This record gives sequence, structure tokens and C-alpha cells, in this order.
Amino acid sequence: MWGGRFAEGPSAIMREINASIPFDKALWRQDIAASKAHVAMLAACDIVTDADAETIIDGLETIAGEYEANGVPEDWDLEDIHMTTEARLAELVGPAAGRLHTARSRNDQVATDFRLWVRDAMDQALAGLAALQRALVTRAGEHAESIMPGFTHLQTAQPVTMGHHLMAYYEMAARDVSRFSDARRRLNQCPLGSAALAGTGFPIDREMTAQALGFAKPTDNSLDAVSDRDFALDYLQAAAQCSLHLSRLAEEMVIWASQPFGFVRMPDTLSTGSSIMPQKKNPDAAELVRGHAGRIVGCLTSLMVTMKGLPLAYSKDMQDDKPPVFEAASLLNLSIAAMTGMVDGATFRTDRMRQAAELGYATATDLADWLVRQADIPFREAHHITGAAVKLAEGKGVALEALTLDELQAIDSRIDERVYSALSVEASVAARASHGGTAPAEVRKRVAEARQHLGMDQ
Amino acid sequence: MWGGRFAEGPSAIMREINASIPFDKALWRQDIAASKAHVAMLAACDIVTDADAETIIDGLETIAGEYEANGVPEDWDLEDIHMTTEARLAELVGPAAGRLHTARSRNDQVATDFRLWVRDAMDQALAGLAALQRALVTRAGEHAESIMPGFTHLQTAQPVTMGHHLMAYYEMAARDVSRFSDARRRLNQCPLGSAALAGTGFPIDREMTAQALGFAKPTDNSLDAVSDRDFALDYLQAAAQCSLHLSRLAEEMVIWASQPFGFVRMPDTLSTGSSIMPQKKNPDAAELVRGHAGRIVGCLTSLMVTMKGLPLAYSKDMQDDKPPVFEAASLLNLSIAAMTGMVDGATFRTDRMRQAAELGYATATDLADWLVRQADIPFREAHHITGAAVKLAEGKGVALEALTLDELQAIDSRIDERVYSALSVEASVAARASHGGTAPAEVRKRVAEARQHLGMDQ
Amino acid sequence: MWGGRFAEGPSAIMREINASIPFDKALWRQDIAASKAHVAMLAACDIVTDADAETIIDGLETIAGEYEANGVPEDWDLEDIHMTTEARLAELVGPAAGRLHTARSRNDQVATDFRLWVRDAMDQALAGLAALQRALVTRAGEHAESIMPGFTHLQTAQPVTMGHHLMAYYEMAARDVSRFSDARRRLNQCPLGSAALAGTGFPIDREMTAQALGFAKPTDNSLDAVSDRDFALDYLQAAAQCSLHLSRLAEEMVIWASQPFGFVRMPDTLSTGSSIMPQKKNPDAAELVRGHAGRIVGCLTSLMVTMKGLPLAYSKDMQDDKPPVFEAASLLNLSIAAMTGMVDGATFRTDRMRQAAELGYATATDLADWLVRQADIPFREAHHITGAAVKLAEGKGVALEALTLDELQAIDSRIDERVYSALSVEASVAARASHGGTAPAEVRKRVAEARQHLGMDQ
Amino acid sequence: MWGGRFAEGPSAIMREINASIPFDKALWRQDIAASKAHVAMLAACDIVTDADAETIIDGLETIAGEYEANGVPEDWDLEDIHMTTEARLAELVGPAAGRLHTARSRNDQVATDFRLWVRDAMDQALAGLAALQRALVTRAGEHAESIMPGFTHLQTAQPVTMGHHLMAYYEMAARDVSRFSDARRRLNQCPLGSAALAGTGFPIDREMTAQALGFAKPTDNSLDAVSDRDFALDYLQAAAQCSLHLSRLAEEMVIWASQPFGFVRMPDTLSTGSSIMPQKKNPDAAELVRGHAGRIVGCLTSLMVTMKGLPLAYSKDMQDDKPPVFEAASLLNLSIAAMTGMVDGATFRTDRMRQAAELGYATATDLADWLVRQADIPFREAHHITGAAVKLAEGKGVALEALTLDELQAIDSRIDERVYSALSVEASVAARASHGGTAPAEVRKRVAEARQHLGMDQ
Repeated sequence: MWGGRFAEGPSAIMREINASIPFDKALWRQDIAASKAHVAMLAACDIVTDADAETIIDGLETIAGEYEANGVPEDWDLEDIHMTTEARLAELVGPAAGRLHTARSRNDQVATDFRLWVRDAMDQALAGLAALQRALVTRAGEHAESIMPGFTHLQTAQPVTMGHHLMAYYEMAARDVSRFSDARRRLNQCPLGSAALAGTGFPIDREMTAQALGFAKPTDNSLDAVSDRDFALDYLQAAAQCSLHLSRLAEEMVIWASQPFGFVRMPDTLSTGSSIMPQKKNPDAAELVRGHAGRIVGCLTSLMVTMKGLPLAYSKDMQDDKPPVFEAASLLNLSIAAMTGMVDGATFRTDRMRQAAELGYATATDLADWLVRQADIPFREAHHITGAAVKLAEGKGVALEALTLDELQAIDSRIDERVYSALSVEASVAARASHGGTAPAEVRKRVAEARQHLGMDQ
Repeated sequence: MWGGRFAEGPSAIMREINASIPFDKALWRQDIAASKAHVAMLAACDIVTDADAETIIDGLETIAGEYEANGVPEDWDLEDIHMTTEARLAELVGPAAGRLHTARSRNDQVATDFRLWVRDAMDQALAGLAALQRALVTRAGEHAESIMPGFTHLQTAQPVTMGHHLMAYYEMAARDVSRFSDARRRLNQCPLGSAALAGTGFPIDREMTAQALGFAKPTDNSLDAVSDRDFALDYLQAAAQCSLHLSRLAEEMVIWASQPFGFVRMPDTLSTGSSIMPQKKNPDAAELVRGHAGRIVGCLTSLMVTMKGLPLAYSKDMQDDKPPVFEAASLLNLSIAAMTGMVDGATFRTDRMRQAAELGYATATDLADWLVRQADIPFREAHHITGAAVKLAEGKGVALEALTLDELQAIDSRIDERVYSALSVEASVAARASHGGTAPAEVRKRVAEARQHLGMDQ
Repeated sequence: MWGGRFAEGPSAIMREINASIPFDKALWRQDIAASKAHVAMLAACDIVTDADAETIIDGLETIAGEYEANGVPEDWDLEDIHMTTEARLAELVGPAAGRLHTARSRNDQVATDFRLWVRDAMDQALAGLAALQRALVTRAGEHAESIMPGFTHLQTAQPVTMGHHLMAYYEMAARDVSRFSDARRRLNQCPLGSAALAGTGFPIDREMTAQALGFAKPTDNSLDAVSDRDFALDYLQAAAQCSLHLSRLAEEMVIWASQPFGFVRMPDTLSTGSSIMPQKKNPDAAELVRGHAGRIVGCLTSLMVTMKGLPLAYSKDMQDDKPPVFEAASLLNLSIAAMTGMVDGATFRTDRMRQAAELGYATATDLADWLVRQADIPFREAHHITGAAVKLAEGKGVALEALTLDELQAIDSRIDERVYSALSVEASVAARASHGGTAPAEVRKRVAEARQHLGMDQ
Repeated sequence: MWGGRFAEGPSAIMREINASIPFDKALWRQDIAASKAHVAMLAACDIVTDADAETIIDGLETIAGEYEANGVPEDWDLEDIHMTTEARLAELVGPAAGRLHTARSRNDQVATDFRLWVRDAMDQALAGLAALQRALVTRAGEHAESIMPGFTHLQTAQPVTMGHHLMAYYEMAARDVSRFSDARRRLNQCPLGSAALAGTGFPIDREMTAQALGFAKPTDNSLDAVSDRDFALDYLQAAAQCSLHLSRLAEEMVIWASQPFGFVRMPDTLSTGSSIMPQKKNPDAAELVRGHAGRIVGCLTSLMVTMKGLPLAYSKDMQDDKPPVFEAASLLNLSIAAMTGMVDGATFRTDRMRQAAELGYATATDLADWLVRQADIPFREAHHITGAAVKLAEGKGVALEALTLDELQAIDSRIDERVYSALSVEASVAARASHGGTAPAEVRKRVAEARQHLGMDQ
């Protein structure tokens, strides 16, 4: 009945399904730090003696050194990082080790360790995003006047500047920063001292451990503190949105790098060749960033589904909280770094972009706008006149600006020669100088603000 | 080839797949408001005449009256709420109607309308959550001393107070409030004036429309402004987390209402009978709240998947942004209201709860803690001693406090008669007076703070 | 406390959250059919009189006529389609109506109705997929020899035939057909007679109702029958995979329709213009198909999350089963039809495709293969030689076949003039004649098989 | 700019994001097997010499021995399992190694290896499900007559037999078996020979490799073969549904193991104690099975999102296909085994179950049915009479069968003494003998059929 690797039967199954040490060993630094803070507080509150506390802290530091040097041993019978460390501590310092667990439980211990880990992951995301923003702003500054086709529906719509396009991603990254910052603030309360679920009768000082671990305050409800994983969901949601932003730029990179577009040459370091087609230069890094968005969304889904309908307080289902967070963090950090590398190292082929912007009657809207402004024609009517001009140009196979004044006036007599000033791509982008528009002057303004915000000119 | 309702062929398919009016008519109030603000600004900037602006505003108000009275007509050939209103405006005021579309596009128009709608949905969630918090705090105040079993793994763990348990949900709701507030702040920038994707050449005043519509400022990048749906994702993520919280309380309500638990009697108004079993009183509202969490998670997934990998700027895929948001908002508002009704109207059967808390050796931890504190025994050793006491009591079929002192001392001679003070459920909860613990005094402190925060005592 | 539309308080909330009639009225045909089959069986088993049965059936037919003519009335107090019909039946035929509910419950009734509805949805998907396959096969036959670039990583890789590319989607659709067929077979058991959860004591004939409703057999376990929604999940999973396939072709259509590619001109009926840019022809239908994939994945997620962790038998959460299925079915049917229209009506610009295939050294692999076969060089070495040739050609800005024999022999002396036969795109595709390869002869073979399978030549 | 572990810059990022060897080394057995089949075919088709083939096969077997003994080395510069093995082969056998790659590409190679791995995972699931079904059927046979409350809405509804309840899960598992079997059949086509995307010009025999690897046939379209991951999605969808079934039984186990229910005692091997509460016996395995459902749903979501909108043929995003499948398979196999252990080892406390069934007026429906059948009263009217009887009994605090005949007749004079035969839980379950009903005789019939189907009595 119990074939394969479970030949021993249920106890083998249990050892494997129950052991979290294969993944939660990633928490070892947080676990040591929280234990040190806890025992220091216990001593300060006279719950353990100073001597015991010192012994325990020395032991924990020894263990930290061992883990640093040799990694964390994976003994499934010790289940998790907490038991693994505790067992080693008992070996090192004897019975005093037992006092470390006074006035806490594995439930508040794991909640604290995991919060600390997630807070670090948030800080890594924030650092990565700052680097990405700097790369975007730098390249946007270089290309404040470079013209490319602006697309809607992936159809050439209106000319825009490459700098404007890159600054759109700066805005997205800024919202990601805002989201991670909000999440960090919401996370930053310390569960330690909530014990198993009900708090403790020991006269502990929760402010002291909170402060020692960099938290703003202790949590206010012990039942909530041990059964809450909002902070992990907040992280995953921010990560998912960030990865969706990156997936959009990655998609553009892939399309722009295709031969028919040829808008970008990817940096060699972030591309690969083909095992069978010697001529290929594949935008692998961009594709992986796009693919990773799928997995990060999956990680978020995992934890949402796992948490649904769990009664208070701690349930063992919550042990499944860590793998999706660890996986998402690894994928997100890599994705942000890879995208930063692509933005930083990409060669934008501005000649090809400008050429594509001129095709496709990208300045048709400018004609319509000119009709409204110069000839006082209602927009909907101007739209129809422009449609007729585009149709005529298409039929002749020429650009809009190549139509003669006679031809244009045959369509609508209110058109005069001033119209030609509206039909070049340079004129088009320069004109769109409303706040947030694509005009080079506007883009330079936004870039300057962003550089200041990021402290790039100090 | 084109059987069934598509007998006409592709044009019938297109009419149906393309029409958003069946759902986006929900935006009509926002669309009218944004159009009024836009044309008022156009007049202030001398882009349209005051007379035209007045005519248009009068026309829009007439249309608003019509929609209010008779609903929005659903003509699929007019595609969406924007075209529907524009067509009606043209009927009402003639060619002047065409000037309304000056310096804007459907892309910034829909982005603005949808932001306004989502902002309203956030405000509704915030109002609903405030009501839920008030109900929780009120009931928690009533039950600050009522004892119930605290569960982990749905096993009786330690006694807690019912007030403490309810306040755990107050904390969750407080994080939901924080999340919706953050999302609202991040949303509150006005896309109007971004035009199709590149901004506009008309000398518009984006600050003016932003202010008129209650936004903090105009958006800073036109490409981003028309292709961004972060605000909708922020709403859905906050809604998903909130619904997960509600699903946990709903699960508890369902379990507590079962005959073997019998902890709660659901209000009649939020229960149903059975079509076939006359004795049933089903906690339908709680089950629906729990089920709705699944659908809200699904709505979030929808929009994340839809947005993945979309190149800038607007793509038509983004028309699929509204149905999941509309659906989630309806489900969330109902769920919050239903849960508020359940919290407000539930009869907590404190006798049954207390009885259950006394069973299952819920004070075993208290014995262990007593051993640590009074007899200076390391926790791990105390844990083993307690295990022996529980085993003895189980064998005899009695409660812990029913063991004699002789029996306890036979297990460990360091136990003395003071131990009995630790073994009652009242003593147990009273002892857990650390910050955030379950002690009635602590719960009353938290309730008082919450009442003040919610302005309940003014 | 109960502001807004819930001013009445909990009873107003309950009426709204509990009512499923706004969506389950879609089941009316199935509900009438199942009721007729049920009462006919009750009469055949002498559980009701023939006269009562006849009265009830007449009443049900009257109601069906009313629904057909005027729609189903939406009275929230009657909750659902079953109560709505039952209440109307009581009005029409008096107390006899009560006998219809003998030996059944709402639980088996709704399970039966919903299965019938989902079975119809599966049949619609199968019909839609057959039409799509016919369109694909027809266009593939036309383009068995048309050459286009085959892409990997969206980089030009090797020349393929357009017919081959279209037949890849035929294969995907064939798997979709297989999936819906499997799901239909698994669904096709009748829950009617399972009653509330435990079966019934009435001497009913479940085979008879199963047969009358087109089911293969009655279900074998009453608890499972009323709490199972696998059939709906099977439908949603098949729908999700199908929509992912469609999203891939939609993505290609969008990219191919962009100006830099210009591989396809979308049919006018399935495109739109722009409200502001008169020159645009947007591939809206393709984008909506791509977007709908996100929503269908969301619908699947909804129901998976809702079903997770529900104890047996029926729980009210399961009322949330229908909206995602109804929504997904509507989106899927539209998506399949729209994609069929696009495949059928698209103009493939084979000149642009062939030109793109010649660029990018698409036949480099052919050179490597020639080296292996004609010059007996290990593949990895041939790969390096070819890389050198591509580099030389790139440097000179010419195609591979434009390199002279001297130049090629300078790279490797084993190359002789026969190599030129391998370097044209026609030679390249013709050579790949392995089973399932892109050679026109292979494609025609596959097309012929598919036409026969679909009965297209009868 | 490139802080932390990416200090080297983009090349370090690329090495890490691009390397799949950390996870795809799990494919090594499949990779060796497919390579051996491929080179044997090349020799049989005279594309490589028999000597070269023998050399290569010997080398591959040496490598397999090394991997078996020492694991697969993880050199990120070799990227994946295919390059790792190929590089080692070149070391072992020299230039002949290069011929192995003739007429194939990494794209068809990875598609083949992954299909083989997923097929094995399907076979493991099928074996696990067979063991689970045997455990369910065995316990159902033991408890064909044990009475428990049947729940709807987790409210006591009607008495059922424990065997009937367990057989509901047998039915779910049977559908899971059907789903994995269908998926296996759909998967079982061999992509090998599709090469990079277009097929190959070498005169290979794809039937031969297909047969050697146990596939039913080669795939029919090379573009589809390298870009298809339906087989992985099919696996994940079947896994998700299976895990949802397991989550329902796990939820029941958790609820049944709670002190207020006390329906089940979990096997010691699959429970744990508490680090702080000595009296606890936590149903960890059940909770982890329930939690794993969340993660498996997340894995499915991952791959669906990743595949959405990918143009043909292979894109690097598809490298993200394996981690979710590997993770889901590990979680699913463990979950099935753990649930089998729980079903096999659980102690069902039939006394507590029967007692709970008697409470809550579980036979009220039987009274209503009796009224219909014996007194010829329409069901809806009988329902109201029964409601009155329940209300009377509740008021008196007694069971239904404890009401006197006078009391019952005062409610409705058509009731006579025969009614008492309908009111015991044994009578109730025995009466529900319709096909699929809960009557012990019916349950024994189903168990016998299942035992025969599973070959348990041979």
C-alpha cells in the first residue's frame, strides 16, 4: 500500500509533509536575531537571569557562525528552523537553552521571523526599483527628443518621444515604490510576545523587543498577530503589480527586438544565441521577465487560496505561506535587476523608430487639431475631413505632408498653407506640451524632477 | 458557418464583442461629471466659447435627468457610454456638441471616468468597514469577559475572551481601511487631458479639471495615464484581502452555528430554512460571504492576467477591466454589510463557549507557565511535567484542576498548592495581561481606544 | 448604521445577497425540462396520479411559453428560478403543484439543471470549435506553399509555410475538442433523485429520468451528486485552455497587423477606427479575444477558490458556481466566433511575409544541416562554421546566398557549390519533410486528413 | 548600481535568470532515455554510423551512472540539463558526441523530456489515487451501517451512513482517475523530430522514437509540438481538482477532530503535539493537505498566465513551465499519500456520530415524506406540518419521536401511529434505498462494485 518512498508508511509521509526545514531555513538570520532580542528582554525584565541570557546569546552567536560557514543542517525530524536552532542550542549550552522559550511560542516566533524576512524583501525591492528608476531616467534624458511611433492597439497612433515612453515606466515604478512603502509601514509591528495565541502572563516588555528589531510598535491583538499573513499578501500583491509592469516593458522589448521592428538591439550580456540557428540573438532576459510575471501572480494566488476560510488562530495550512513568498521574492529581484540591465544596456535604434513614426500617418490627429484650432471646425467634423485626407494619401501612396495644398483644399476649402507646420513629426511632438504631454520640453521637466527626487545630481 | 445568434456573420459578432455599453453604462454619472468639468475648463481657457460651454452643460444635465429617470439606453451600435451620451448630446444641442471632444480622447475620458467610479467604490468600502468595525467593537465591549476556547488547528488551546476574539477582526478591518486609504491616495490623480496617448497641443488647464473632480493633481505622463489600471488592481487587491478576512469570520460563524458547537445563533434575518428539512436554520449569509471571497479573488486574477504583457499605450484588452471591478465591488459591499449584520445580530451562547473552554485541558499551558515562574523550571522541562499531568487527568477522565495535590506532587515534587490558582479559565485569561493579550482588562483598553478612534463616544 | 440601499437593515441585505434569480433565471429551460421528466417518472412509478402529472406538465408548458414570450420575472423574494417557477405553477394549477416536489429537493434539482446547462455550453463550444477548425483548414490549404518567417523568441528562425502555421492552431483546437468531449462524457450522469443529500425513500426510477434528459446513467452517490461541481470546473478548465490558445493567435494577429510587420490586413467587420486618429485600423476583435482569456482564467479561479475546503454536502457557497460559468461561456463563445471570423476574413500579405523570411538569415540552419549531411561534419562544428558565414554576410550587409563560393570556402574548404541549393527559402521549407514538418507536401497531407476528419469534402 | 549578489553586473544577472539547471536537472532520466532513443534511430536510419551510436549510448549510460551515484552537477554556465549532459558526453567520447544533436534541437528535446516527466507524474497520481480508493472502500465497507449526521450548510440535515459519506470521496477520486487518464492519452504523442520549430530535412523515423519512448504516435505539427504545453496544463488542472477534493475531506477531518465534534481520532503518526500546549493533538497532516490545495491552484495559475498570449513557436517564457509542475506534483503526491494514511488510520467514533445524528431533528424530512406517502398530502403542505411538529418538540426540548400521538394529531389529524416507524435514524437511512441513496444495502452494493473495479477481491 505504501509503495515508493513512503514504504515506511504514514510516519514517512508525515516526516516529509510536516518538515518545513527545507525552505524555512532561509529564516535563520531572522530567527537568531529575534531570539537574541527576546532573551535580552527577558533578562531586562528579570524573567531570566543575566547569566542565562548571556549564555544563550553566546550560544546563538556560535550557531549563527556555524550556519554562516556551513549552511543550516536539514534534519527533517527537527521539522523547522526553530527546532533546529533550539536543539543545537541545547547541545551547546545545556538546560539554560530551555529558558529561551519562556513567554513565547512557535506561533509568535514564526510570525516575527517571517515579518522580518518579508521586510527585508520589501527593502530589496525598493532598492532594486530605485536602480531601475535611475536607469529609466538616465535613458529618458538621453532620448528626450528622439522620436518614435506612439502606439495604441499596437497601431501607429501619434509620434511620441522615446524619453516620454521610458518615463511612463518611471511612473509605474514610482507607484510600485509607493506600494512597497505602504506595505512596509503596515507590516512594521512586532508579534513577539503574543505567544501561542492569547498573550502571556509573564511580565514582558513588548516595546523593548519591538524596538530592538526595528518595528514601530508591538501588535495590538495576540490572536490576530499569530494568524495574520496580510504582510505576506501585501508583499505578493505589490510584487505582482510590479511584475506586471515589467512584463509590459519586456513585451515591448521582445517586439522591438524583432527584425520587422528593429527598434532595439539588446545587450549581448542579456541575450543568447541558438543551439541550432547560428544567426539568432534571442531576448531571453526579457522573455524570462515576462514569464516570471506569470509565476509571481501564481504565488499570490497560492497564498490567497491558502488563507481563505481559515478559522483563528494559527492553522498548519499557514506553513504553506513561505514557499510562494520566497519564490516570488527571488523571481522579482531577478526580474527588476534584469530589466534594469536591459534599460541600461539597450541600444535604441532611433533612426528606425523615427522612420516608423513617419509612416502610418501618425500626424493625422495633428491635422484634425489644426482644423479645430485654426479653422474653428468642431472636432467631429475635423475628424471626417482628416479621414478624407488620409484616404487620398493612402491611395496615392504618399505621406500626409506630401499632399499638395490644392489637394487638401479640394477636401476642405478652409485649409491653408499654415497646415504644413502641423504635419511633421517634430512639430507634432513639440506641440503636445500640455502637462504630462510628450513634448521634449515637458519630458525634460519630468526628467529633472525625477533626478532630483532620486538624488541623482548630488 | 455562422449559426445561432451570429447568423449575420462577423458584423454581428463584432457588435456583440465590441459593445461595452451593457456594463459601462454604470459609469454614466462619472462620465457626465467629467464632461462638465472638461467643457468648463475649455471655456475658461478660451478654447470653446462660453455660450457653447453653457449649451453643452445644459445638454449634459438634461441627459443626466433622462438617465436618472429612465436608465441608460443600450444601443450596441453606439458601443459605450461615451458614444451614447455624445450621440444624445448631438441630438439635443446640435453641432456644438462636437466641441466637447476638443483636447480629449476616449482614452483619457474612460480612464478618468473609471478612476472616479473606483474612487467611489473605495469610499463605499471605507464606509462599510467603519460600520463593521463599530459592530465588532460594540460586541467586543459586551463580551470583554466572556470566556470561550481559543483554538489553534481548531483544537482547544487556551481560554480566551470573546471580546478579544472579535477585536482580532477589528485589527484586520483596520488594515483593510489602511489599504483602501493608501489605494485611494495613489489613485487620486486626474488623467483628463492626456488625450489619446501623447497629450494635447491645446492650451488646456489640467489643474483646473483635476481640482473640479476632486483629484489631488493631474497625472504626470500621458502614455502612462491612458494605459494604467493600477488603481483598479489596487482596489481589487484590497477587496480580495478584505474578503479573505470576512471569509475567516464567516467560516467561524458556520462552524459555531453547527449543532455540535452551538456557540452562536444566527439572526433570523440572515438565515434561511430548508425546502425539504423543516428543522434547519442555515447560515446562508455567512456561506455566501465565504463563497464571495472566491469570486473576488477570481476578479483580481482576471484583471492581472488581462494586463499582463500589454504594450503601451491603450489596447482594447483593457475594455475587460470593468466587469471584474464592478462585480467585485458589488460582492464586497454586500459581504461587508452582511457580516456587519451577523456580528450585530448574532446571539453568542456564552454558556456553551465557556463549557467548551473548560474541556480539553485548555489551561495546561498555565500549569507549565506556573512551573516556570514559581518553581524556576526551564520551559521545556515544565512542558514535559504538564504533559504527564494531562495524561493522568485524561486517564482519570477529569479536569486538570480536579487532580489532587498528592497526584501532582507525585509527578513533580516542586508543585505546591498555589498551583490551583493557575488552573481556572478565569485565572488563565486574567493572567494574560501582556500588551495585546486576552485579559479582560487588556481587551477593555483596546475597545476604548477603538471607540475613540471611531468616534463612537461623541 | 444601515445607510444607502440597505436602509431597511439586514433583511434588505439578505434579500439581495441570497437572491440568485438575477442570474439563475438563465436555467429556466433546463428547469422546466427536468421538472417535466421528474413528474412523468413520478406518474410512471405511481407516486403521483396521471391526472396530477398531466396537470403539472400542462402548467409547466404554460410557464415555458410565458418565459419565452416575456422573460422570467425577477422577484427577489422568490429567490431563484426554482421557487419562481414553482410559485407560478401553484397559481396556475393549485395544490397539485405541491406534488411536483415529491422525492426531490432543491439540491438535486439545481445540480441537474446546471449540468444540463453546462452540457449545452460544451456542445456550443464543440460546434464553435468545429467552425474554427474548418476556417483554419481552409486557409491552410490556400497557403500550403506561402512562405513566412518561422519565429522563436519572436526572432526570425527558419522559413515555414503559412499553412503549417495555421495548422498548428488546428492541432490546438483538436485538443480543445478532445477536452470538451472528455468533460461532457464525465458530466453526463443525472443527479435527479439524490434529493437533499441522502437519496429518497420513494420508489423512484432514476434510470428513467436520466434517459429522458439524455444522461448516460444516474449518479451513484447522493452525497456526492449534490455537492459535486467537477463538471463546471471541467468546463471552465477546458474553456481556459481554449482561450489561452485563442490568445496566442490573437497576439500574433495584433503583431502581424502592426505597420512594421504588415503581415495581415484584418477584416473591416472585425476592426474599428479611432475617435481621434482617423488613420487607425485597430484589431479590436483580436485584442478582446486576448483580453477575454484573462477573464476566463479569472472565472476558473473563482470557482476553484469557492469550492476549496467545503464540507459535504451542499453549502450555500455553491450558489456562487453559476456566475463564473455563465460569464466564461459567453466570453468563450464570442471569442471562438470572433477568431473564426478573423481567420476566415483576414488578408494574409504573403509578399511581406516572404520578404521578412528572406531577411534575418533564416536559412542558416539549412547551411549547418548541409555541412553535416554533405560534408559529414559533426553538428556542433557545422554550427560554428555557419556562425562565421552569418557574421561575414552581416558585415557585408548581404544575404547568405549572396556570399561567393570563395568566401564560403575561405571559412571552410569542405563547402562546394552544391551548398547554394540549400540556401533559398523554398528549398528550406521543401526539405523539412519529416512527419509533421513544414514542407508543403507535408502540410497538404495534414490538411487532407483534417478535411476528411471534419467531413469537409462530402 | 549592481549591488549585492549582482555586483558583476548584467552577466551575473543573466547567468542566474537564464540557468534552469537548478530545477530541470530533475529531467535527467528522461533526457538520457530520449537521447538514447534518438541516436538509436539515427543509426537505424543511417544518419550516424552504428559505431558512433554505440559510443554515444555507452557514454550516456556512463553519465546516467554518474548522476545516479553523485547527483547532477549544477554549473550555471551550462544552463540546463541538456547542455550539462552534452558537455559531459563530449568529455567522455570526444567529437562523436556532436552527432547526437543531429536532426533535433533543444526545443523538441525539452518538449519530449518534459512530456515523459509529466507522464510519470500522471502515473504516480493514478497509483496514489488507486491506493486512496482502496482505503476509502475498505473503511466504507466497515461502516456501511454506521450512522452519522448528514450535513448541509454544516447543519444537521438527515442521518446518513458513514460508509455512504466515504463513498462520496470514492466517486470524486474516480473522476480524478478519469481526468488523469484522459490527460495521459492526450499527452501521449512524441515531439522528438520536430527540431527547432519546422521539422528536419534528415530522413528520420519519428515512429521509431515515439515507439521506443512509449508514445502512441509522433506529433503532427512541428510548430505546435515545440510550443505546446497543454499536457502540463492538463496535469495541473487534474491536480488542482484532485487537491480540491482532498481539501474537502481534510476540512471535514479538521472539523470532526475538534473537541465539540469529536467524530474522529486522527492517527498519531499524522498528528503533532504543541510546543507550548501539552494537551493538544493537532491534525497537521489534514491541514497541510488543505493548504497544499492553495499552492496547487497557484501552480496552475502560474502556468496559465505564463502561456497567455505567447506567439509561436518557442519563447523563453516557457522555461517557467517546469517549477510549477514539479512543485504541484510533489505537493499532490504527498497530499494523496497523507490522505490515504488518514483514511486508513483514523478512528471513527461512531458513538459520537450516532448521538449527533439523533440530535437536531434529523428525521424531520422522514416525517414529511411519511405524510406525503401515507396520508397523501402534497409535499409543501407536509413540510409545514412537520415544521409545526419540530417547533413543538424544540419548545419541549425533546426529540421528534418523543412527541405523543395526541400531540402529533393535534397538529394534523391525518397522522397515525405508523408514523413512529419513520422517526428513528436507522429507519431513516434504511428507507433511502433509491439508487445512490444512503441505505446500508445500497452502500454495500456500491462498495462491492468498487472492490471489483479495483480488483480488491482477487
